[in-house]
Amino acid sequence: MTKATSMSAAEGAGQVTVLGLGDMGSAIARTFVERGFRTTVWNRTAAKAAPLADAGATAAATAAEAVAASPLVVVCLLDGAAVDEVLASVGTAIAGKVLVNVTSGSPAQARAHERWAVGRGAQYIDGKVMGDPPDVGKPHVVFPFSGSRAAYEAHEPTLQVLGGIAYHGEDAGAAAVEFMAQVGMGFDLLLGFLHTLKLVQREGVDVAAFTDRLAASVAAYPPLLTSMAQAVKSGEYGPDLGSLDVQAALMDDLISHRESVGVEAVRMREVKTLMDRRITAGHGAQGFSSLFELLRK
Amino acid sequence: MTKATSMSAAEGAGQVTVLGLGDMGSAIARTFVERGFRTTVWNRTAAKAAPLADAGATAAATAAEAVAASPLVVVCLLDGAAVDEVLASVGTAIAGKVLVNVTSGSPAQARAHERWAVGRGAQYIDGKVMGDPPDVGKPHVVFPFSGSRAAYEAHEPTLQVLGGIAYHGEDAGAAAVEFMAQVGMGFDLLLGFLHTLKLVQREGVDVAAFTDRLAASVAAYPPLLTSMAQAVKSGEYGPDLGSLDVQAALMDDLISHRESVGVEAVRMREVKTLMDRRITAGHGAQGFSSLFELLRK
Ligand SMILES: NC(=O)c1ccc[n+]([C@@H]2O[C@H](COP(=O)([O-])OP(=O)(O)OC[C@H]3O[C@@H](n4cnc5c(N)ncnc54)[C@H](OP(=O)(O)O)[C@@H]3O)[C@@H](O)[C@H]2O)c1
Ligand SMILES: NC(=O)c1ccc[n+]([C@@H]2O[C@H](COP(=O)([O-])OP(=O)(O)OC[C@H]3O[C@@H](n4cnc5c(N)ncnc54)[C@H](OP(=O)(O)O)[C@@H]3O)[C@@H](O)[C@H]2O)c1
Repeated sequence: MTKATSMSAAEGAGQVTVLGLGDMGSAIARTFVERGFRTTVWNRTAAKAAPLADAGATAAATAAEAVAASPLVVVCLLDGAAVDEVLASVGTAIAGKVLVNVTSGSPAQARAHERWAVGRGAQYIDGKVMGDPPDVGKPHVVFPFSGSRAAYEAHEPTLQVLGGIAYHGEDAGAAAVEFMAQVGMGFDLLLGFLHTLKLVQREGVDVAAFTDRLAASVAAYPPLLTSMAQAVKSGEYGPDLGSLDVQAALMDDLISHRESVGVEAVRMREVKTLMDRRITAGHGAQGFSSLFELLRK
Repeated sequence: MTKATSMSAAEGAGQVTVLGLGDMGSAIARTFVERGFRTTVWNRTAAKAAPLADAGATAAATAAEAVAASPLVVVCLLDGAAVDEVLASVGTAIAGKVLVNVTSGSPAQARAHERWAVGRGAQYIDGKVMGDPPDVGKPHVVFPFSGSRAAYEAHEPTLQVLGGIAYHGEDAGAAAVEFMAQVGMGFDLLLGFLHTLKLVQREGVDVAAFTDRLAASVAAYPPLLTSMAQAVKSGEYGPDLGSLDVQAALMDDLISHRESVGVEAVRMREVKTLMDRRITAGHGAQGFSSLFELLRK
């Protein structure tokens, strides 16, 4: 950070606008208010601004008015379509501002929003929120950001009050890549978990007691993920989780067991197909991570 | 445990047979030898017994001879078919023994092996191994056991040397249920992880640096799994991970992003379908765990 940008940060610090006061936008606006920022808020349904106004925020009548009030404008709406709609109503008020869009969405949407902002004389930062509204402001709520480095560095002290922030680079889509990867992995894991609970429930096992044991296993996964990522990066696949030869010997029993209790086995069949292909190609002594080699279209 | 059973444990302790000396069977046999057990070993390919004989085990010429040598017989072979084949060669030597089969397999196989053993005058304990061969003997290698409670209690002190043991009940299939549930969840999580690595790699992100960040997220999952299991058990679904209404708004972007970089989206489409069905049924204010309600055939 240069002296000049941190000076301009100091000038602008303390003043922020939040567009969108759903659960997440309200939590963000409240955090700014509580940290002493002069906070202007706006929401399509005006009633949602009332508790924030009570807490000390200024409620603007229109999105354009809210944007005009502060150098930094944080947008947190339902999705990309809602952002498009609200930004369209803002008009020229956005010129000279820094627009920080923390609405969930894809890298392509982030890049499109950046083009929109830059085309109107604004700087753009894309951000994503990974965490629960009540936890905003705590370091374990992670906000990946990307886009204008100058704007990010200038406003880092403000963004920092939101939680554990990280800058992912000038490509406006980078924060969304991180978000999509993490959220996709999370949904994947959690749906797999629900199918597993169905399996144990069908077998008459207490789902809560099982989950206590499973949670202990899951807590041991991070080092395995780290070593698998190293294998993927280097292309040198050791026998993680044992050899594919031994793992594959399990798969038919695993699949038929799931089906015998009426639990889906789509992912397990995918695992088996990939293992069999690696073994047929002569890689049966390698481990699970080597399945990565087959994940291409 | 009664006095009588712990007495009989004391009588039999110190003598054990291991059939199968692959990576896992060898690790088990070596652990017994190192803990001072008089250990008899056998393997189809006799050469694999040599290092254990050097370490102090007795190598038997046939499986039947090995079974005859000890009151407790641990079997660790590739799969259920290998177990069937080896047991068929053992003949009447199994009468009066306790057979502990720790070969991976399904609950149905475990129950069939129990019928075989009991039909020949033996007691049966099914076990499964969750961990790596070099770690056998350490508490984080988990061995679920099930089957004859009397035999388990009598031989608990011996089995305890193998790692973190737990008894899951008299149904011989119970250890396999635990194993299939945990392994299925693990494969599910890990294949989801590899797809996620493909996504970040396609987007030009360093897979190792991403995994460091992801590992921090995964470390936070155990309490979420615990609370989701409570929701499933009670049928009271709060808005975990936010409401389905808000989560579902993401899914089209998530799916189209994955497909735009050539990463599979089968699981994500399943998530979206389930979310949409819950929302249509009026449950959009509930959270992810409520998808459990739709997992029926
Ligand atoms: N809640 C969470 O746990 C969580 C966690 C991480 C990320 N996020 C993300 O944060 C963002 C906001 O989520 P939320 O929980 O705050 O959702 P929410 O409570 O449902 O609020 C949605 C917000 O979007 C506004 N909106 C929707 N469509 C609009 C439109 N066409 N024009 C103007 N405003 C519109 C709503 O305005 P009205 O009040 O007028 O309807 C409301 O302010 C989403 O992208 C979500 O993925 C949420
Ligand atoms: N390795 C791991 O990381 C791990 C982890 C957890 C659980 N397990 C489970 O432990 C069990 C053993 O795995 P492992 O790693 O030891 O496998 P392995 O190294 O491939 O050894 C397989 C064993 O099975 C024997 N075998 C296979 N087919 C046979 C047949 N028809 N008749 C007689 N013997 C036969 C082999 O004998 P030969 O030497 O004559 O071929 C060898 O002793 C498996 O059920 C596996 O799922 C392994």
